[in-house]
Amino acid sequence: MATFRSDWQPDRSSPVPLYKQIIAYLQGKIRSGEWPAGSKIPSQRALAKAMGVNRSTVVTALEELIAEGWLEGKTGSGTVVTGSSWREQVTLPPDWNRYVRAGLYRPNLPTIQEINQAEFLPGIIRLGTGELSPELHPHQLMGEVLSRLHARIRSLGYEEPKGLLFLREQISRYVASLGIQASPGSILVVSGALQALQLISLGILQQGGTILLEKPSYLYSLRLFQSAGIRLAGVPLDAHGIRADCLAAGIKKHRAGLLYTIPSFHNPTGLVMSERRRAEVLRVCEAERLPVVEDDVYRELWLDEPLPAPLKARDRSGLVLYLGSLSKTLSPGLRIGWLIGPEPVIERLADIKMQTDYGASSLAQWAAAEWLASGFYQQHLERIRSGLRRRREILLEALRRDFSDLAEWTVPTGGFYIWLRLHSQVRMRELFDQARAAGLLLHPGNLYDRAATSCLRLSYAYAKETELSEALRLLSRLVRQHAAGQGE
Amino acid sequence: MATFRSDWQPDRSSPVPLYKQIIAYLQGKIRSGEWPAGSKIPSQRALAKAMGVNRSTVVTALEELIAEGWLEGKTGSGTVVTGSSWREQVTLPPDWNRYVRAGLYRPNLPTIQEINQAEFLPGIIRLGTGELSPELHPHQLMGEVLSRLHARIRSLGYEEPKGLLFLREQISRYVASLGIQASPGSILVVSGALQALQLISLGILQQGGTILLEKPSYLYSLRLFQSAGIRLAGVPLDAHGIRADCLAAGIKKHRAGLLYTIPSFHNPTGLVMSERRRAEVLRVCEAERLPVVEDDVYRELWLDEPLPAPLKARDRSGLVLYLGSLSKTLSPGLRIGWLIGPEPVIERLADIKMQTDYGASSLAQWAAAEWLASGFYQQHLERIRSGLRRRREILLEALRRDFSDLAEWTVPTGGFYIWLRLHSQVRMRELFDQARAAGLLLHPGNLYDRAATSCLRLSYAYAKETELSEALRLLSRLVRQHAAGQGE
Repeated sequence: MATFRSDWQPDRSSPVPLYKQIIAYLQGKIRSGEWPAGSKIPSQRALAKAMGVNRSTVVTALEELIAEGWLEGKTGSGTVVTGSSWREQVTLPPDWNRYVRAGLYRPNLPTIQEINQAEFLPGIIRLGTGELSPELHPHQLMGEVLSRLHARIRSLGYEEPKGLLFLREQISRYVASLGIQASPGSILVVSGALQALQLISLGILQQGGTILLEKPSYLYSLRLFQSAGIRLAGVPLDAHGIRADCLAAGIKKHRAGLLYTIPSFHNPTGLVMSERRRAEVLRVCEAERLPVVEDDVYRELWLDEPLPAPLKARDRSGLVLYLGSLSKTLSPGLRIGWLIGPEPVIERLADIKMQTDYGASSLAQWAAAEWLASGFYQQHLERIRSGLRRRREILLEALRRDFSDLAEWTVPTGGFYIWLRLHSQVRMRELFDQARAAGLLLHPGNLYDRAATSCLRLSYAYAKETELSEALRLLSRLVRQHAAGQGE
Repeated sequence: MATFRSDWQPDRSSPVPLYKQIIAYLQGKIRSGEWPAGSKIPSQRALAKAMGVNRSTVVTALEELIAEGWLEGKTGSGTVVTGSSWREQVTLPPDWNRYVRAGLYRPNLPTIQEINQAEFLPGIIRLGTGELSPELHPHQLMGEVLSRLHARIRSLGYEEPKGLLFLREQISRYVASLGIQASPGSILVVSGALQALQLISLGILQQGGTILLEKPSYLYSLRLFQSAGIRLAGVPLDAHGIRADCLAAGIKKHRAGLLYTIPSFHNPTGLVMSERRRAEVLRVCEAERLPVVEDDVYRELWLDEPLPAPLKARDRSGLVLYLGSLSKTLSPGLRIGWLIGPEPVIERLADIKMQTDYGASSLAQWAAAEWLASGFYQQHLERIRSGLRRRREILLEALRRDFSDLAEWTVPTGGFYIWLRLHSQVRMRELFDQARAAGLLLHPGNLYDRAATSCLRLSYAYAKETELSEALRLLSRLVRQHAAGQGE
């Protein structure tokens, strides 16, 4: 069991001693099958922390449970739930450990698992999170949208395979403003852009095939393509985006089946692919007949000036599958994104979506449609742009103050991220742990490129405005200590 | 392209002739890449129907497009978009047809695909749909829930891997009322029960393994387990549910890795597993250490008397993975269900859920939690039970009137379904098509058991109350004609 977070603490006002309450609680976990026989229980330290008691109290409880035969200590693998001795009849549960190790899907990278859990630790400051701060949540407008929904929604059934038609009409109109001609029939509503990637991985790629992508890339932090038997092959970036010359070579070398690219505010580097590079990349892919997935979820987060048109707006042969989303600009909690492409592809992926979750939440689809139709979305975008500008300035000021001698970075013109390249090598795993112990949650660069061991993805979008500056000061101290320690 | 539903019709008030408008529309589809080169366009009949014009108008437009080289007629495969001749430079698109045929996931069964599309045809009467009628949508209470949400929601970010804690607390309290002890840590919020099945198929089952299930079963209408390389092996039913004696044999014969069962208002037969059979099934599975997925999404739809306790309530060794949902009882459009099981399993599946869609919609999770916390859910259940009782009576009356000599059926004590077994063999495919042409959408029995070729899954839940009786009369006429035709 990964990070243990108890939903329960003993009652200090009760006459029953704490350790007896803990015994009863743990027996309940075991009896109900939540902790099946053979499973490892959390460490003494984790239990004590989660329950808010001294470690010695936990030790007393565990010793009694071991004496009574509920648990046993196993060398090297901690304390384990026993199979039987506490029950009258001997019935061993299924070998769940074997099941948990089976299955087609690989687990998330350990660091990603830890980040997913640690994000919810109370008080933690999230310095790399790719999500708008709760401070930027449009409380008033969301209230207005929710109140309008009641009048619109006459029922909340399953929707069409491609998604609610009213939403697809709004998306069609919205992307026209970006230069993309897409009728509702060529749009698939997805539960966030990540789901579109999963559908692509399961639906249109050959097992054993290869995807080209920028190196570094967000996609390296995921395992879903690898789980579907597909390889990733990185193509280097320069200041103008993915290198078109290397791209052509990469296609041939790897007999690639797809290019995945984030041309606008690339994750994690923040780069914008130039006008000219966009044309070159498209030319190469057209010549090679290589499909392109254009991940454009950060486009609206420009802070200085609007971006060059999407690849999809220049696509004349139905080459580009285009990904958009409300997650980065409005609310990840809606879980609404869209995939635009040739109809045969959209229909294949809609069919798979029906097999995996019967479509995105209708409630969320109606809410998203209302955001787009009402014009509130554009209003909201202007508001968050000014919020993000302020935050970018705070982070840059702190970097200039605390990191000038430690690292280099590029000033982003939009999006969420600053790709911090430390001058000296660090043991990233240790830095991550130390930072977490100090209350900072980091996104190590090697999640996005195994070789980027001295990089960090910083985000000015999530942490509280009042905390950003101090958090950077603390981080610089940790990095300095760390660099000094390395030198020893 | 499956069923074609145009989002566009020509403008009859325009001076431009209809066929010219159609030409311009189709050129737009091709130019934008929505209909890539090599793809087959919809049939003349489908185009004419969708656009609301005569077939001859479509023919005129297509002939001109063929003459200009945009389209070509191919023997045996209809009209196909040409690769190049209409553009200055020759750039062939990717071979999308090859991509669409690739991928790990199998397409849905053709009949399921047609049903998924046909459900949205205007005026169609859905006689087999497993969903509450829009007539039973709780408009007023949903309005109350939405208005309360505004005060609760301070931001709509990504949630914890297992789902919104507040919702899991409500689920924990709710299932306690069914006799199930489950702390929030052993509950995974899913985007409907179907997603839980997908997570199980990708997360904890060995490729090449086998799942046992009732025959017939809803699960036969899905392809997701087969897509993940897992086989299904059916076990016969009797009036008390899945046969425990055959189960033991099946486990050994197939070296099964899991039992999937719907003990309460089984889909499609409507059967309820008896108290005694539940104990026997659990005993067999305990002895064989076989995990059980208990799909209990219909439980609250009892119409005559509450049901025997779930298998999960009797589970003493953490054997049962329990599936619940709001889709059948409240709203499929929320897309909120839950999976309850041992923590190591829940954590493995939560990790995969994070990889596939970053969690269910927070908006929907908050709404679901509010439904449970407010007590509105229980209020609503009583209301729909009386609605379903009325509907069941209408359907049974129509059956007695029109089908007494044609078929047999069992009176269901809850759920949605009546499993209609026709006395004579029918060509199901033809009956399905004839019914659809007459405005009725059927769920053929062979979706749930290949051998059930003369069965239909009827549902009294979805169609309008005022339409149910007439629709059954029409269906009986079709069956009679069909049976007479067969006899010739």
